[in-house]
Amino acid sequence: MKKSPVLIVGSVAFDDLEMPSGTFNDVIGGAATYSSIAASLLGPVRIVGVVGEDFPDAMLADLDRRGVDTSGVERAKGKSFRWRGRYSPDLASRETLDTQLNVFADFRPKIPASFKSTPVVLLGNIHPALQLEVLAQIDKPRLVVADTMNFWITGEPKLLDEVLKKVDLLVINDEEARQLSGIHNLVKAAKDIMRRGPSRLIVKRGEHGALYFDTHGAFFAPAYPLEEVLDPTGAGDSFAGGLIGYVARVGDLEPHTMRRAMYFGSALGSFCVEGIGPRRLLEVTHADLESRMKAFTALVETGGPVQIPE
Amino acid sequence: MKKSPVLIVGSVAFDDLEMPSGTFNDVIGGAATYSSIAASLLGPVRIVGVVGEDFPDAMLADLDRRGVDTSGVERAKGKSFRWRGRYSPDLASRETLDTQLNVFADFRPKIPASFKSTPVVLLGNIHPALQLEVLAQIDKPRLVVADTMNFWITGEPKLLDEVLKKVDLLVINDEEARQLSGIHNLVKAAKDIMRRGPSRLIVKRGEHGALYFDTHGAFFAPAYPLEEVLDPTGAGDSFAGGLIGYVARVGDLEPHTMRRAMYFGSALGSFCVEGIGPRRLLEVTHADLESRMKAFTALVETGGPVQIPE
Repeated sequence: MKKSPVLIVGSVAFDDLEMPSGTFNDVIGGAATYSSIAASLLGPVRIVGVVGEDFPDAMLADLDRRGVDTSGVERAKGKSFRWRGRYSPDLASRETLDTQLNVFADFRPKIPASFKSTPVVLLGNIHPALQLEVLAQIDKPRLVVADTMNFWITGEPKLLDEVLKKVDLLVINDEEARQLSGIHNLVKAAKDIMRRGPSRLIVKRGEHGALYFDTHGAFFAPAYPLEEVLDPTGAGDSFAGGLIGYVARVGDLEPHTMRRAMYFGSALGSFCVEGIGPRRLLEVTHADLESRMKAFTALVETGGPVQIPE
Repeated sequence: MKKSPVLIVGSVAFDDLEMPSGTFNDVIGGAATYSSIAASLLGPVRIVGVVGEDFPDAMLADLDRRGVDTSGVERAKGKSFRWRGRYSPDLASRETLDTQLNVFADFRPKIPASFKSTPVVLLGNIHPALQLEVLAQIDKPRLVVADTMNFWITGEPKLLDEVLKKVDLLVINDEEARQLSGIHNLVKAAKDIMRRGPSRLIVKRGEHGALYFDTHGAFFAPAYPLEEVLDPTGAGDSFAGGLIGYVARVGDLEPHTMRRAMYFGSALGSFCVEGIGPRRLLEVTHADLESRMKAFTALVETGGPVQIPE
């Protein structure tokens, strides 16, 4: 699967963001948008989603220029999915003020024929029934990555269990891992979740980094400690995008590839939070990414093995 | 300062612990106790503190057998310092139910003549006036490490500022760093605190690991993800003890020494939380420590540099 493209299915939307730094309306959002922008820094992306008549052509054209094939983004009658949220002063929590599904309410992902054999697939946080519909339409990929959320964990546990059986790597946050397993301890929760299907699991912990579990054990990658965090919206989706972008670019699923991919996820997440919406992420260059990877290396560098001295 | 001993000044106490797993009374506690036990795994320790008539001789003898010189532990008339606390079901927070200073109320640390030239000194979380008294009694050490807490940050800001000017490495938790600096962002908070004296700063984040700052930049060491956490009491003090124990054993203050020391701090903290009070910590062998360091290495191992592939 050397240097393969990635397929990303999920929401393309507008966000209205009430941040400590001000209110920002009509910000381009959606999980698939963030993941695609992040992944496109590392290789070609194919995106499947739906937008309304209000979504700017210019944004889709922007994505296309970045190497994101938007031919799978359907334009439906009506308005785009819209989320309005308010963040706490320390940005550590947020509340949903309004969710308008709009054209997303009737979304049934249709995978273009030319996308069906994409080796790396990211199923964004959509209804598990839709995640299953996507998998039914495509050839067996080398790596199926999925996200989910509390709404589906409590609302659609049976369908979600079906999804878990077909997923190679589940990427969720710590609260979702606890809710999905009913276990507070994350190491035990990870074992429980992996017994239910995915051979790999990532537990995202926001500013506290992310844990990766596979049959070889646990791996930890920190979040990058930033001086300025403006907006956490989309950071988790950027993480997933950076991760799959790296895996697809390397072209194998070796343990070290997956571990290094965690750092690319973390790097893309760190850029994302530096701007309102995807603004900063859209500006990031290859040189920025190289420089952030060097900063990460410096952050964890011990200059050799850590062992008890004589 | 090759393979020097460490001097630890602080509380030696009893804790009554109301844990989700049960209530444990008369548990051996105190910051200096935890730090000493942890540090003694790596080299000789000198401890200065005070206990009451109720403190078991056997415990002091135990410490002595571990290489902790307890000749600086004064036995005063009355009862030992006692803290009673209750932890939340997830162990993430705790409330103090009762604090009895007892003999600790009149504690004035007296540094034995044979301890005065110890090159590495840990000033536990005691009144900043007492921390200054300790420094006034000793020869200039190579490394002065200090802890403090919210109580002194708000109650004794001027004295604490005096302490900061004389400290090489401040070890505090994230909330204390925010309170001390008045800055929420930890990178900015660290810069502010280092401008006030210490050339090095560690910000402990409990189960989320710890950040180290010096003039070379930031370093991050994770906490070890454990399947079973019984009691976080003393974990931060064990961290400090493991850290200084390693530094004293290596015998230099090179950036890589400090960075590796973070892992030893984290390892000792991880053992501490595996048992009620210092029970597990007291059992830890050299082989256990070696094995935990290998587990840490596996946790962060990327098998080579992490960079953008061609």
